[in-house]
Amino acid sequence: MLPGKIASLMSDTLTTLKSKLADVNALNTAIAIMDWDQQCYMPRGGAEARGAHVGLLGRMAHELMTSDEMGKLLEKAAGEVSHGSDDAAMVRVSKRQYDLSTKIPASLVEEKMRLSSEAHELWVEARAKNDFASFASTLEKMFDIARKEAEYLGYKDHIYDALLDQYEEGATAADAREMFDTLKGPLVDLVKAIKESSNQVDDSKLYGTWDVEKQRQFTEKIVQAVGFSFERGRQDVAPHPFCTNFSIADVRLTTRYKDYIGSAIFGSLHEAGHGLYEQGSPMAWDRTPLAGGVSLGVHESQSRTWENIVGRSKAFWQHFLPDLQKLFPELGSFDLNGWYRAINKVEPSFIRVEADEVTYNLHILVRFELECDLLEGTLSVKDLPEAWNQKYRDYLGITPETDSVGCLQDVHWSGALIGYFPTYSMGNLLSYQIWNCLRKDVGDTDALMAAGDFKPILHWLQQKIYLQGSKYTPRDLVERVTGKPMGAEDYIEGLTAKYREVYGL
Amino acid sequence: MLPGKIASLMSDTLTTLKSKLADVNALNTAIAIMDWDQQCYMPRGGAEARGAHVGLLGRMAHELMTSDEMGKLLEKAAGEVSHGSDDAAMVRVSKRQYDLSTKIPASLVEEKMRLSSEAHELWVEARAKNDFASFASTLEKMFDIARKEAEYLGYKDHIYDALLDQYEEGATAADAREMFDTLKGPLVDLVKAIKESSNQVDDSKLYGTWDVEKQRQFTEKIVQAVGFSFERGRQDVAPHPFCTNFSIADVRLTTRYKDYIGSAIFGSLHEAGHGLYEQGSPMAWDRTPLAGGVSLGVHESQSRTWENIVGRSKAFWQHFLPDLQKLFPELGSFDLNGWYRAINKVEPSFIRVEADEVTYNLHILVRFELECDLLEGTLSVKDLPEAWNQKYRDYLGITPETDSVGCLQDVHWSGALIGYFPTYSMGNLLSYQIWNCLRKDVGDTDALMAAGDFKPILHWLQQKIYLQGSKYTPRDLVERVTGKPMGAEDYIEGLTAKYREVYGL
Repeated sequence: MLPGKIASLMSDTLTTLKSKLADVNALNTAIAIMDWDQQCYMPRGGAEARGAHVGLLGRMAHELMTSDEMGKLLEKAAGEVSHGSDDAAMVRVSKRQYDLSTKIPASLVEEKMRLSSEAHELWVEARAKNDFASFASTLEKMFDIARKEAEYLGYKDHIYDALLDQYEEGATAADAREMFDTLKGPLVDLVKAIKESSNQVDDSKLYGTWDVEKQRQFTEKIVQAVGFSFERGRQDVAPHPFCTNFSIADVRLTTRYKDYIGSAIFGSLHEAGHGLYEQGSPMAWDRTPLAGGVSLGVHESQSRTWENIVGRSKAFWQHFLPDLQKLFPELGSFDLNGWYRAINKVEPSFIRVEADEVTYNLHILVRFELECDLLEGTLSVKDLPEAWNQKYRDYLGITPETDSVGCLQDVHWSGALIGYFPTYSMGNLLSYQIWNCLRKDVGDTDALMAAGDFKPILHWLQQKIYLQGSKYTPRDLVERVTGKPMGAEDYIEGLTAKYREVYGL
Repeated sequence: MLPGKIASLMSDTLTTLKSKLADVNALNTAIAIMDWDQQCYMPRGGAEARGAHVGLLGRMAHELMTSDEMGKLLEKAAGEVSHGSDDAAMVRVSKRQYDLSTKIPASLVEEKMRLSSEAHELWVEARAKNDFASFASTLEKMFDIARKEAEYLGYKDHIYDALLDQYEEGATAADAREMFDTLKGPLVDLVKAIKESSNQVDDSKLYGTWDVEKQRQFTEKIVQAVGFSFERGRQDVAPHPFCTNFSIADVRLTTRYKDYIGSAIFGSLHEAGHGLYEQGSPMAWDRTPLAGGVSLGVHESQSRTWENIVGRSKAFWQHFLPDLQKLFPELGSFDLNGWYRAINKVEPSFIRVEADEVTYNLHILVRFELECDLLEGTLSVKDLPEAWNQKYRDYLGITPETDSVGCLQDVHWSGALIGYFPTYSMGNLLSYQIWNCLRKDVGDTDALMAAGDFKPILHWLQQKIYLQGSKYTPRDLVERVTGKPMGAEDYIEGLTAKYREVYGL
C-alpha cells in the first residue's frame, strides 16, 4: 500500500469519527436549547411534549455515542493520532465519554431516567410540604441505582470514586476526604472567630424592592465589563440561574432578581464566570468534544473566581459602587468599606445556595459525608434527617428547623446527581490556587480592578485555562497552570486573610 | 397463524411506524426551536454553529423519513389500517411526506439547500444595494432547480402544479389561474373606484412613536381575548413576524413594533390566527403528522380571518377602541367610524406585506404570473425587473421606483420557495368563504364581537377546522366545511360590500 493511500485511510477514520461526533453534538445542543427554553421561556403547556422530545433526542444521542461503529472508529482512530496532538485529545475525551456511556446497561440508564423524572416531582412536593417520609423510598432507590452504576463503572478503592469521576475525571473519595480534612478545622475555627467578633456586619440595607430593569442594566454592565461578550452570548431570567451554551460563540447566562440585591449581582458574575470559560475556547474546536470547560471543579473555579475573588473584592467595588449607587440612590449611604463588609457578611445559615464564602464548604462537607455513609450503607435513608441536622450542629452550630431547609433543600439527589457535591468545594480551592499564580504574572490585580480594567486578568485565564478547552485532564491542567496538584493551602490562607480583615480579627 | 398473532403483528407495524415518526417529529421540533431562537433571541455569534446544527439535524430527519424501513413500514401499515380511521389518515399524510422527500434525489436537495443559504445573503445585499444584476444568475439557478424538482415530483398538466402541490396538496396552476381570472377584474375595478372616490381616508395619525410596552400589553390583550392561550403559547418579538409551534400546547407567536401602530396590532392578530389553528388540534394527535394545520392556504385563511374579518371589523373596535385610546391618548380624537376607515385605508403600494386587503391579491397575481413565465421559459430572469414593473403598472397603476421595492422585495425566491405565493390568495378567498358559513351557524357575529365575546366564533372554527388537524386533504376539508370547492365569489362579494361602505361608493 502506498504511503498516500495510508494517509488517506487514516484521515478517513478521523473524518468519519468527527462527523459522527458532530451529529452527537447537534443532538445534545438541541437538548440544551430545549432545556434553556424550558427554564427561561416555555409556557406551562409545553412541558409534556418537551419531556418527550428531550427523551427521544437523548436516546438518539446515546445510541449514536454507544454504537458499535463509534467504538470501532474510536479504537482505530486511537492508533492513528499522534501523541500530544489535538486529535489525540479529542479521541481520548470521546473514548472516555463512550466508556462512561457503554459501561452502564441501557436498562439501568432508562430506570435512572424514569426514576429521576418521577423523583423530581416527588421531591418538589416533599420539600413544599416538609414531608421527608414521602420522598424516602424514592431516595433509597436513587442510592440503589447509584450503587449499581458505580459497580458497572468500576473503581479501585471506594465506591464513591466511580461516581465522582463522572463529574471530575480522576478525582477520588480519598482526594475529597483529604480536602475536607484540611478544610474542616480552619473553617470551623474561622466561623467561630467571626461569630465571636465584636465587629459584626449589618447587611439589612441590601434587602428591599429593587427595580428589575435597573438590576438588569447593572448586571449586564458588570458582566460585559469583566469581558463577557454579548455578541457571543446573552443573559435571560430563570428561577434557578445557570449557564449553558450552544456554541463557543453562543453562550447563555441566566440570572434572577430577588429582594437581596446581591442575588442578581453575584449570581450574574458567577454564571458569567462559567460563560467566560465557555466563550474562551478556541473557535477551531467549536462543536467538538474539545470545546468548553474540562470538568465541574475547574468550571466552578472560574465561576467562583469572577463571583468571589473579583466580584466580592474591595477593588471591584471601588470601580462599580458609584454606578450602582447612581442606579439605586437608596444605597447611597454606603461607603466603600461598609459596602465591602456588607457583601461579605459571614453567617451560618441553612441553605447552601445562599451561603457566604466561608461557610459554603461546610455545607458541601455535610453532603459529602452523608453520601459516603449512604453509599457504604452505614447510614440508612430513614435516618438521614437526623444525621443531616447533627452535622449542621457540629459544623455550623445551627439546627435546621425543618427538613425543607435541611436534607430536602437540594435538587441534586432527586436528579440522580450523586457524587457531584465535592466539585463545588474543589472549585473554591482551585479559584484561590489559580488566582495566586495569576497575581504573580499579572501584578497588581487590585489596581487593575479598581480601574475597571479586567483585560489582563481575563487574558491570563484565557491563555492558561480557557484556550485549553478540554484538551488536558483536569489534573494535568491544574498542574500545568499552577505547578502543583490541587490543594487547600492557598484557599485557607486567602480566605482567612480576607475575613480577618473584614471582621477585624 | 392465529388471529391474535395477526393483530399483534399489525399493531407492531403501526407502533414501530409511529415511533419512527415521533423521532422525525423530535428532530423537526428541535430545528423549529433553533429557528425560533435564531429569529427572537440568538446573539449574532451563534449564526455559524446554528446553521451547522440545523443542517445536521435536518439531514438526520431526512434520512429517517426517507429510509427503506420507513418506506416498508408505510406500505405495510397502509394495508392494515381501516378506511376513514385516524391511523389511515396518519399513514396517508406520512406517505405523502415520504414520497415528496424520496422523489427528489439527495444531491438535488443538497444543491438546493446550499444555493438557498448562499442566495439569502446575496438577496439581502442585492435588495439593500438595489442591485438586481448581482442576484440574477443566482435566481436563474434557483428557477433551474425548481424546474428539475418539478420534473422529479411529476405533474399532469403544468410544471407549476408539482411545485404548488408541495404547499397546497392537490392545487394546480389551473386552479390558481381560474382564481386570479375571477379576481382580477373586480379587484382592479374596486381599486379604481376607490382611487376616484371623493371620500378619501386619512390614516396619518396611525404613524408615530408608540410605547413598546403598551403595544405589547394591548396586543397580548386582544390576542388573548380572541382565544389564544398564553398557558399554551407566548408572544415574542422578531424582525419578521411568524408563528411556529413545538407542540399543540406550546405555540409561539411573534410580532414587531413599528411606527405604524397597525403593524403590531394586525400582525399579532394574523399570527394569532395561525396560532389558534395550531392550538386547536386534538391533543391526542400531539407530535404526530396529524397535528396542526393542513396546508398553507387553509392556514392563511385562519390568519386572515382573525386579522381582517375579525380584527379590521367595526364591531371588533367597538369593543377595543376605548382600551386602545386609554393606552394611547394621542388616538383619542378618533371616533369608531373614523378609526374603522383609517385601519381599512386602500392604496396601491409597492410592498406586498404592507398592502391593504383589497390590493393584496394583485401583488400575488403579479408574482404568480411571473413565476409561470419564468418556469415556462417565456420570460428570462434578466427581463424580470421590467416585466415586474409593467405588471404593477397594469394591475396597481404604480411603477416601483427601484427593484428593492420591486422584484427584490420578497424573501421567497431566495429561499427556494417557488410556487408558494398563490396560497396567500387562496387563504384570502377561503377566509370569506368559511366566514359566510360560520355566520349562518353562529348568527350575529357583529354583536358577539362588539361584546368582546369571541368564544362562539372560535368554537365553530375549532369544531369545523382546527380539531380536524391534517386528517383530510385541504380540498376535502374545504368541501366538508363549506359544502363547495374553494371559489372567489364570497370573497369578491364580501370585500366589495365592505369597501363600498368604507369609501361610500
